[in-house]
Amino acid sequence: MTTFDDRSLVEIRRDLHRHPEEGWKEFRTTALVAEELDRLGFDLALGADAVNAEERLGVPSDDEIAAARERARREGAPEEYLDYMDDVTGLVASKRYGDGPTIGVRVDMDALARSEATDDDHRPAREGFGSTHPTEMHACGHDGHTAIGVGIARAFDAEGFDGTLKLFFQPAEEGGRGGKPMSETDHLDDVDALLALHLGLDEATGTIVGGYDRPLSNAKIDVTFDGEPAHAGGAPNEGRNALQAMSTAIQNLYAIPRHADGKTRINVGQVHADNAQNVICEEARMRVEVRGEDADLNDYMMAKADRVVEHAAGMHDVDFDTSLYGMTTTFENDQSVVETVMDAAETVEAVDQVCGRSPFGGSEDASFLVRRVQENGGVASYVGIGASNPAGHHTAYFDIEEESLDIGVDVITESVRRLADDL
Amino acid sequence: MTTFDDRSLVEIRRDLHRHPEEGWKEFRTTALVAEELDRLGFDLALGADAVNAEERLGVPSDDEIAAARERARREGAPEEYLDYMDDVTGLVASKRYGDGPTIGVRVDMDALARSEATDDDHRPAREGFGSTHPTEMHACGHDGHTAIGVGIARAFDAEGFDGTLKLFFQPAEEGGRGGKPMSETDHLDDVDALLALHLGLDEATGTIVGGYDRPLSNAKIDVTFDGEPAHAGGAPNEGRNALQAMSTAIQNLYAIPRHADGKTRINVGQVHADNAQNVICEEARMRVEVRGEDADLNDYMMAKADRVVEHAAGMHDVDFDTSLYGMTTTFENDQSVVETVMDAAETVEAVDQVCGRSPFGGSEDASFLVRRVQENGGVASYVGIGASNPAGHHTAYFDIEEESLDIGVDVITESVRRLADDL
Amino acid sequence: MTTFDDRSLVEIRRDLHRHPEEGWKEFRTTALVAEELDRLGFDLALGADAVNAEERLGVPSDDEIAAARERARREGAPEEYLDYMDDVTGLVASKRYGDGPTIGVRVDMDALARSEATDDDHRPAREGFGSTHPTEMHACGHDGHTAIGVGIARAFDAEGFDGTLKLFFQPAEEGGRGGKPMSETDHLDDVDALLALHLGLDEATGTIVGGYDRPLSNAKIDVTFDGEPAHAGGAPNEGRNALQAMSTAIQNLYAIPRHADGKTRINVGQVHADNAQNVICEEARMRVEVRGEDADLNDYMMAKADRVVEHAAGMHDVDFDTSLYGMTTTFENDQSVVETVMDAAETVEAVDQVCGRSPFGGSEDASFLVRRVQENGGVASYVGIGASNPAGHHTAYFDIEEESLDIGVDVITESVRRLADDL
Amino acid sequence: MTTFDDRSLVEIRRDLHRHPEEGWKEFRTTALVAEELDRLGFDLALGADAVNAEERLGVPSDDEIAAARERARREGAPEEYLDYMDDVTGLVASKRYGDGPTIGVRVDMDALARSEATDDDHRPAREGFGSTHPTEMHACGHDGHTAIGVGIARAFDAEGFDGTLKLFFQPAEEGGRGGKPMSETDHLDDVDALLALHLGLDEATGTIVGGYDRPLSNAKIDVTFDGEPAHAGGAPNEGRNALQAMSTAIQNLYAIPRHADGKTRINVGQVHADNAQNVICEEARMRVEVRGEDADLNDYMMAKADRVVEHAAGMHDVDFDTSLYGMTTTFENDQSVVETVMDAAETVEAVDQVCGRSPFGGSEDASFLVRRVQENGGVASYVGIGASNPAGHHTAYFDIEEESLDIGVDVITESVRRLADDL
Repeated sequence: MTTFDDRSLVEIRRDLHRHPEEGWKEFRTTALVAEELDRLGFDLALGADAVNAEERLGVPSDDEIAAARERARREGAPEEYLDYMDDVTGLVASKRYGDGPTIGVRVDMDALARSEATDDDHRPAREGFGSTHPTEMHACGHDGHTAIGVGIARAFDAEGFDGTLKLFFQPAEEGGRGGKPMSETDHLDDVDALLALHLGLDEATGTIVGGYDRPLSNAKIDVTFDGEPAHAGGAPNEGRNALQAMSTAIQNLYAIPRHADGKTRINVGQVHADNAQNVICEEARMRVEVRGEDADLNDYMMAKADRVVEHAAGMHDVDFDTSLYGMTTTFENDQSVVETVMDAAETVEAVDQVCGRSPFGGSEDASFLVRRVQENGGVASYVGIGASNPAGHHTAYFDIEEESLDIGVDVITESVRRLADDL
Repeated sequence: MTTFDDRSLVEIRRDLHRHPEEGWKEFRTTALVAEELDRLGFDLALGADAVNAEERLGVPSDDEIAAARERARREGAPEEYLDYMDDVTGLVASKRYGDGPTIGVRVDMDALARSEATDDDHRPAREGFGSTHPTEMHACGHDGHTAIGVGIARAFDAEGFDGTLKLFFQPAEEGGRGGKPMSETDHLDDVDALLALHLGLDEATGTIVGGYDRPLSNAKIDVTFDGEPAHAGGAPNEGRNALQAMSTAIQNLYAIPRHADGKTRINVGQVHADNAQNVICEEARMRVEVRGEDADLNDYMMAKADRVVEHAAGMHDVDFDTSLYGMTTTFENDQSVVETVMDAAETVEAVDQVCGRSPFGGSEDASFLVRRVQENGGVASYVGIGASNPAGHHTAYFDIEEESLDIGVDVITESVRRLADDL
Repeated sequence: MTTFDDRSLVEIRRDLHRHPEEGWKEFRTTALVAEELDRLGFDLALGADAVNAEERLGVPSDDEIAAARERARREGAPEEYLDYMDDVTGLVASKRYGDGPTIGVRVDMDALARSEATDDDHRPAREGFGSTHPTEMHACGHDGHTAIGVGIARAFDAEGFDGTLKLFFQPAEEGGRGGKPMSETDHLDDVDALLALHLGLDEATGTIVGGYDRPLSNAKIDVTFDGEPAHAGGAPNEGRNALQAMSTAIQNLYAIPRHADGKTRINVGQVHADNAQNVICEEARMRVEVRGEDADLNDYMMAKADRVVEHAAGMHDVDFDTSLYGMTTTFENDQSVVETVMDAAETVEAVDQVCGRSPFGGSEDASFLVRRVQENGGVASYVGIGASNPAGHHTAYFDIEEESLDIGVDVITESVRRLADDL
Repeated sequence: MTTFDDRSLVEIRRDLHRHPEEGWKEFRTTALVAEELDRLGFDLALGADAVNAEERLGVPSDDEIAAARERARREGAPEEYLDYMDDVTGLVASKRYGDGPTIGVRVDMDALARSEATDDDHRPAREGFGSTHPTEMHACGHDGHTAIGVGIARAFDAEGFDGTLKLFFQPAEEGGRGGKPMSETDHLDDVDALLALHLGLDEATGTIVGGYDRPLSNAKIDVTFDGEPAHAGGAPNEGRNALQAMSTAIQNLYAIPRHADGKTRINVGQVHADNAQNVICEEARMRVEVRGEDADLNDYMMAKADRVVEHAAGMHDVDFDTSLYGMTTTFENDQSVVETVMDAAETVEAVDQVCGRSPFGGSEDASFLVRRVQENGGVASYVGIGASNPAGHHTAYFDIEEESLDIGVDVITESVRRLADDL
């Protein structure tokens, strides 16, 4: 039987690495973490008690979720917690150690939809803990994040601290699908300080970044173009070509003007059209992402993208439909928390470099949790835990140096203690 | 046990309609036809004896073929013929009735990769013979063609004719994948006259077209663009975007100049790129079709398309690969055969309109068989058997009026007799 | 003083070749022809008496017309006829020789807006009759057409024929701007038979084509996109980019689907946008041409082009305006006239090849005159006069072999006589 | 006779505003300034003595320069200085007042290629000093810059300062064409401190910006595509379409990926293709601008743009040619100079707001002069002189509040004094 009980953080991370689960499919991960935290005496809120299920974004089909749940069961997820979860993943776990403030820590659990390298140049393959799920991979370190979350819970087991610890094991960070619905619960209302964390990000093991600031706002939009099929040889003029519409859209999406006020981004990641070669394309689908350095810039990109899609469709006389797949926003860390983390990091022996605030190049839906805490008068920072990675995030050869796991636990644990004392 | 033995042509057609098999997957169809023709005393060449296996175009993966074969077995295909076929479909069956010339008849057997309508507006659904294979459908009448082929074999059983009958049950006509490899065998070398046939084509039941001429030459080309992934937010400049390359290619493919010398066509039917929204597209694939009124025009389109693909890739600094998926050529019918068919048609009571030669709007890989026969000094025509169809070919509501099956048998049978007498 | 009085057709053609005048600027050409026909006793209708001035298409600006008129005066155009014309070019000249039917002959007079080759490989340059107007050139043989028109008038001077001759010297054929307004007068109402003619068209001197049939219908459309300028470095997002709109339009115009029913064409000949490099484009203009094998196909292309332009503008949030620059339609020759011309051609010694009807690849606004005559019950043909040309029509090295001028006069003159006798 | 002698700065500015001269055409401006500075006792270097004539970028044709020079003469430019200039504009003027350091001041003189608003909403029109040159306009304040340059020369006439003043009246700033060749002379070698200045930039009159930093690097590239013409109706396949190549290039230029390291820009300002509508486009030209926040980013954009152009040409089988039209680079101001300017500004009564360093959104070829001074060990700053402007720079309604002229003179004069004292 699978359990985390007697396993080290490295073992836990490798177990998760072998069983990566995409967003909203983290049944095995959630259940195993829940079991371990239950053992450690935490109060648990699982599934629809942990996230606002109605507000979930980018949810897979019922069939896919059922299959993921069944797979989790098959791969050793404890039934009790699977039952509690029903068909929603995610976990909020809290434990009161003292009268002091409530300190939250948020980690994310999901894997990416990509295949992992299987050759010996890749340590997980070489050492036998590569993904066993052909199209899923922990290529962004969330396996390590989850292990660190468990490590923090364990760390306080012996002597506690003067306050309440609240751990947020968030589903579906990839795509910005889980942060918003997790923030739209009341679990954050009593959190006085929140720490989120990320491994790697091209910082070497031993480096700590006190706070990554201003992630890009982004929105992910699913677009479908619906035309009219026709025989491409016999009656090309009778078709309404969804693919011509989509290609025109793609060309013009990438050409949305840069903005004077700051960074913007646009990408089309997926496209699909499935007609025979001799049929004028009936339906074409694409998945688009826009970003902005702040929410206004993100709105600018969304408005421009909408206009492009609408008129690309109109130009080729096809219908279209757009829907939101995921979303993130931006935030600024609180300087006081950044400094507390930096001070805490200085006390950890394995840390050899401590940096201050640094801009975050990408997007993060921890943003919704951070903003919720800040809006309630709390403070927060998004902390970087260096972890030498041999290849870029999201690539087939991504891996992390596992010494970083203990460093992460030590830095965050010490930060939690200090925040509890200072607030 | 399934067998065609005691079933009418309508029953056979409906059985095939319920079990449509895409190109190179016609295991059940081939095996059932083979069994019936074996019963009728034909000599059989199956699988790699019927087509030049090395020259097959657009062959599915080994896994897909194995699955199709296994499905055929499950759905009642007689083992004996499955074993003979191994993993190649197709059948050439011949029987000598007299000393006269050898007359060939070619029918195609494959279905399309599309879903069939399931509502009551669609007769096959309403009357319970809709496709039981979710993504396959006989939407071009080849189920009827195969039934007519069987009907012709039966028709000569009683009294024969003065010659040899050779029936070509061709696989993989859709996409132009089976005609070329079936023509590259020696089965056509002794054929003095060849008749190919097609149902429907927007002619009503009771109409016969003596010869469809000059189908478009075409080529189907699979293209893959290979770029370099990168994080679309963090490092968009580090990617080499396969999707931008593909979109640029698509825009410019459709814009290949029209040609002064005649009809040309271009279409992109399928596109796929499967990255997360935040990853610069690493790989993008498309399936392209070009056509020309003659082989030179087809070559013009192929050369232009190659140039577009090459430079779209170069523009975005990505690699590319192209391969041929299918191919057809063009031909002219022999006037003598057209006239023989027209004369024969006049003798069939259910025929109420007989037309002469007419241009064929689409493409047909019977072209390779016709040309092979003509190159050997034989004659040929591609005959139209009217069959009122409620919806266009290749659409979800395509169907044929089944009275056309007997008409087809009668017209072709009488044509065979007359050709044998005249040659 | 310039006059055609004592000059040969070759001299006249060379004089016109040296003084090419674009459409609606043929003041010198019209005036000199008018003077010569006046001398020969023709009744003249000039300018707004010859064409429906309100219906003119693609008219240059008042300044340009005034300049062309002034240039004509400077280059020897007789004042009397310039005065009559006012600011409209074109001439209809008629003379009654007998009681028989009225036979019309239409020639066009305008030059192209292009520069002529000036090197010795080009005979007009080598022999000193190259264009003296830097951006205008007789690159389509209309100088020869005009000379032939004069030659026909002279040919009947001696012995006449049994009928009335009506000569249509049409302005602004290039672009299809003069045919429609010339057809919308009553000059054609009494024409029983109409001959139009064209030199060259890749037929050698000595060849006569009895009738070029079915020219493509076409329409020329001027499009302006109006956006909003902005500093491309400082505020790219504040612009509304007319050039992005235009480029998107161009890409998609060329990609309008080919049509099952016949030939279609699309071209964008001119584009202009005149901003500094650091200004987001405020205004962009383009000149588009569509064609169809018949009027329906032309309408299909116009509708598709309109849709592309509208949504290219919408996609980039810019305004747009379209206007018709020129237009032609299609026609079928009357077989009786074609045969009469062929018979007549056989009698001309210098003719060594006589062809029947042949499809006309391009467009011609003689079509409006032909259709008007046919609608009134008359007959017509569009005759080809072979004239070996060393380089393609509309190119800088176009020229015609001048022996073709007399052949043209002889064939048309004999055809006119025969038509008058036969009708 | 025209002279600046007895005219106020406002009068001088208005005179220049009425006679705007585009880059490399500033004959009248240069000559009038030279005459005035000659009167004030400056040593003059004019034309090829002021700029490195061989290194000029984006030089108009000889005809255009000759016409501009002739116009200047006609509009009162003193002959003596026109003669000295020959066909090159620009002026370096220096005067020694004391033994102290050499302080340079750089102003630019050229106008933009755009028409000025002529309605009464526009003060220059209303008050009678609107541009008299239809396609030229001082829409960026260089008329004011030149007037301030004259004002500074006059200001020191009474009491001087302890050093040498060197005034750089730079031609052809628009497009980045004059800065590089002016920097490639030895006039800057002895400059210990350099001040450049700009009016407006959306700061109100009374505001001084001590230093605009880090202008974008940019490059302006002229591209020509050379294809093959063909008749668009008769032989569209025989053309090689330069316009399709250009449109493909434009679509893909705007879609060059944004860069992780900082701001990039791309724009296509001008396009021209001049064929008749029925001719496949033979030649198409465009003027492109790229920018980067630093020189590396600019190089990135140039390399990407080159790749796009090359393959757009290759895709449509046309030739291409690219040439550099203009160029700027980036720089950082020296903090000491910024502070000196800010201190000086505080002493000027009409100044009500003094700002520190601010990023410069656009590009500036003063950058080459600044870098040359800094490379030689000198110091520099690019100073902003607020001047309320009713409409954006480069627009038809741009104007400046003229109170800013005296403020500019006072701030720069005081800064010069202080720099001379401090260095």
